[in-house]
Amino acid sequence: MALTDIAWDAFLELDPVEKSRHLNQDDGRPFHVLMTRQFDRKALDTLGELATRIRFLAKTKEGMTFLAGLLPHRRAMLYFTQPSTRTFLSFCSACEILGMRIGNVRDTATSSELKGETKDDSVRTFSSYFDCVVMRTQVGGLAERMAWVLSNSERPVPIINAGSGKDQHPTQALLDIYTLQRSFEDCGGIDGKTVVFVGDLLRGRTVRSLSALLTNYEGVHQVFIAPPELQVADDVLAILDASHVTYEQGDDLAAAVPKADAIYMTRVQDEWDTEKGASAKIDIERYWLKETHLEQLKPDAVIMHPLPRRHEIPPSIDNDPRAVYWRQMRNGMWIRTALLATIFECDGDIYAFSQA
Amino acid sequence: MALTDIAWDAFLELDPVEKSRHLNQDDGRPFHVLMTRQFDRKALDTLGELATRIRFLAKTKEGMTFLAGLLPHRRAMLYFTQPSTRTFLSFCSACEILGMRIGNVRDTATSSELKGETKDDSVRTFSSYFDCVVMRTQVGGLAERMAWVLSNSERPVPIINAGSGKDQHPTQALLDIYTLQRSFEDCGGIDGKTVVFVGDLLRGRTVRSLSALLTNYEGVHQVFIAPPELQVADDVLAILDASHVTYEQGDDLAAAVPKADAIYMTRVQDEWDTEKGASAKIDIERYWLKETHLEQLKPDAVIMHPLPRRHEIPPSIDNDPRAVYWRQMRNGMWIRTALLATIFECDGDIYAFSQA
Amino acid sequence: MALTDIAWDAFLELDPVEKSRHLNQDDGRPFHVLMTRQFDRKALDTLGELATRIRFLAKTKEGMTFLAGLLPHRRAMLYFTQPSTRTFLSFCSACEILGMRIGNVRDTATSSELKGETKDDSVRTFSSYFDCVVMRTQVGGLAERMAWVLSNSERPVPIINAGSGKDQHPTQALLDIYTLQRSFEDCGGIDGKTVVFVGDLLRGRTVRSLSALLTNYEGVHQVFIAPPELQVADDVLAILDASHVTYEQGDDLAAAVPKADAIYMTRVQDEWDTEKGASAKIDIERYWLKETHLEQLKPDAVIMHPLPRRHEIPPSIDNDPRAVYWRQMRNGMWIRTALLATIFECDGDIYAFSQA
Repeated sequence: MALTDIAWDAFLELDPVEKSRHLNQDDGRPFHVLMTRQFDRKALDTLGELATRIRFLAKTKEGMTFLAGLLPHRRAMLYFTQPSTRTFLSFCSACEILGMRIGNVRDTATSSELKGETKDDSVRTFSSYFDCVVMRTQVGGLAERMAWVLSNSERPVPIINAGSGKDQHPTQALLDIYTLQRSFEDCGGIDGKTVVFVGDLLRGRTVRSLSALLTNYEGVHQVFIAPPELQVADDVLAILDASHVTYEQGDDLAAAVPKADAIYMTRVQDEWDTEKGASAKIDIERYWLKETHLEQLKPDAVIMHPLPRRHEIPPSIDNDPRAVYWRQMRNGMWIRTALLATIFECDGDIYAFSQA
Repeated sequence: MALTDIAWDAFLELDPVEKSRHLNQDDGRPFHVLMTRQFDRKALDTLGELATRIRFLAKTKEGMTFLAGLLPHRRAMLYFTQPSTRTFLSFCSACEILGMRIGNVRDTATSSELKGETKDDSVRTFSSYFDCVVMRTQVGGLAERMAWVLSNSERPVPIINAGSGKDQHPTQALLDIYTLQRSFEDCGGIDGKTVVFVGDLLRGRTVRSLSALLTNYEGVHQVFIAPPELQVADDVLAILDASHVTYEQGDDLAAAVPKADAIYMTRVQDEWDTEKGASAKIDIERYWLKETHLEQLKPDAVIMHPLPRRHEIPPSIDNDPRAVYWRQMRNGMWIRTALLATIFECDGDIYAFSQA
Repeated sequence: MALTDIAWDAFLELDPVEKSRHLNQDDGRPFHVLMTRQFDRKALDTLGELATRIRFLAKTKEGMTFLAGLLPHRRAMLYFTQPSTRTFLSFCSACEILGMRIGNVRDTATSSELKGETKDDSVRTFSSYFDCVVMRTQVGGLAERMAWVLSNSERPVPIINAGSGKDQHPTQALLDIYTLQRSFEDCGGIDGKTVVFVGDLLRGRTVRSLSALLTNYEGVHQVFIAPPELQVADDVLAILDASHVTYEQGDDLAAAVPKADAIYMTRVQDEWDTEKGASAKIDIERYWLKETHLEQLKPDAVIMHPLPRRHEIPPSIDNDPRAVYWRQMRNGMWIRTALLATIFECDGDIYAFSQA
């Protein structure tokens, strides 16, 4: 059983790879979903295949009705105390596709924390009424703590990290991988492709997570285009070095575009500025994608963005067939559905039904 | 396909009647529901008949179970950034009667607009996870804009205007018409009746919309009883003139009561006062319905009110059989259910089942 | 029909026992659930037995699917204007177990009360769209008023009091009784047991309600351990006197522990302090349960707490098999499910299915 065989203090001292081993069930199936490191190449392939099955089933009323009959006896708590629209709605949709019922807490002002309850007790409360807790919070490490507390209570239920503090947002990385899988399914898959990350590479958790997950694939070349103040952090590069991945850094977007199989645009995350207005001093416009760049972009390349966007991509590019960011967002719903189906072990039913 | 054949700027310049032609599907079925002008006599009759079928089905568990099986594969986003209880709850109920799942955004503080996302992108986000967007907002014209944006995206979904700015609230007008249809179904229908509007006729969107919709009926006489400062606006009268409808204006409620087949009471909408307290200077009590008026009211007339009320109708009148405002509110649920069933094309199934 | 045969002013003047007689249906089944006095020994036994049936059914997908098919045609409004996590979530869960749809109002800022609507009208609005209203409010007596208003409208629907003002919280008392029933089911039931209440006995509505409900059982001895400023109120003792129940008061927790079959711990309710910080002057630590007390506690005794807790029980005690407060919380979900099933008359179906 995940996390029951280790004390909290000992777990905290583990490095990420060792931590991730404690989060899965004995058969390798994820129980808690806390970090991208839990997912190896095989797990990513399996999850993507399941998401595609679900996506096709969802095209018909018959398929939707089948899916909604899988987990009507399960209930999910969405505990979102950090502002979020798309991750919240995407998880809602994923739960409902499988027939799960949803409760939510979005504002701790309506909760018993006002009465002096500890967060440990609050989460045990949720777990009393729900079969899993999807959690998004500004407090780094909270999802890990909650997973440990629940695993060691009389009612262990899975925790899914939907964004925690500055670093981890594993389901976003999963949807990015799924988007790349779909984009390259007719041209050899992700192996050997060049991915160009652009923008605020220092503070975007999506870039950190996706870059690390890509080390699961053979020969992926990573390019980081950013203003020097916002270049990707050394710990990200250390992971690439350890995995013998090739990469380059630079600040010339136009020069990078022709190499790209995928361009991953990001917005400046100025909500993390330590000094107010610091980001405004950076000449960020050099890192915006423009229509003129499109001429240099390979015909079967894709343009991604985790959204929300500001000015990094003008709406006029939305109609270019290589712009996949709206589809990418919708992929989040499919991959989260696949993840829930995997945790609650109804993936077998889905394969059986979709082959019939 | 609605709104795909016209540029935004060109659409904006159309007059309401021309606009409304762009909102329906080719077979005349509404796609987006933005303005009362979309509904002609035939559409109103059809919708009312469908609402009645649904209302009868909903009386039994068998009928409710049938209805809930119609749209379990569809999901509605309720985007309500303007305070509302009854319209919100009424749409929730309508969706759930048909088995639709619901997501809601009621406070933009929890959304990605904080991160600088445009409203166009926010609505495209909602549409990614939902099959229709029901929208209530203080911003006039926003629902139109959103409808156009979605129609011209890769995932067009219908927008239903649940109150937008000062002027349009089409589903309120539909429920008012349905209430009149039901009230007069045994005495010749709406044609030839006299409707007396009382109160703040200048700023109530319900009066504006209902008055215009009544021009679809033959020989309806409209009477506007209001303080001079709050009399009905000239553009409303212009529509009546153009339709050759007879009407009169005045400030003597007692004199109007005996003529009425329907009295439509309204409250002072002082939230729209441009000068604080302006409404308080008006002697509004002269426009309150009193028990003494009831003696002069025809025995088969009806008293309506869009609710919420203040003092325009004392609670003691609630028990008079001619007081239909509570039923009127519930009619909103039925007519909205009928509207959703029409948009998602399950009206045929409902007729088939209710005739079996 | 409940509450239809008495005027509001006359109802208000009744004593609690007489009031409670007006809240049930003619066959003794609760219609409105407003006060603990509505439940006699037989009603408590019946409700507990039904909760246990439901609890066992809920262990399987087949049973959950059966339960969810009972009330899919019913909708509940959760009107919670006082902060609450666990009561809210527990009622949500109870409704969903039976397949009921849920609407909620948690913040009157989004409602029509802003437009000057009376509470009477607001509740009639909810009742228009829903089949019952679960209500939690800081305003004492509001649930009673609403029950009366609805019973005397054209659409009477039940009101369930989920905590109203300082005194009544009947479903909490029901879950406490159910926890005692389960705890003592193999050792003679509740009759003859000793229950020790500890902490803030003056202001906790749970203590007031449970103490009164226990008078339904034979020979239950009650012990009240509290600082003198927070001792149980005279009106509670008056009920015990009238029922010839034995009790004692004191401030020595250690001396009371060995006598206890159940210890009912509570937190200081300082949100009710009339003078800010008044509670902080009390040496409350003497009324905290410590691990050293456990040695003196009978092996088959139980430790209860309505939660949320602060420091009255250290988390280290959670793993003691006599600590039942987490199970107690979950019992709230089962007893509320049983209550809804009783009100909507599907208890017979549940017995039939669970015996098959």
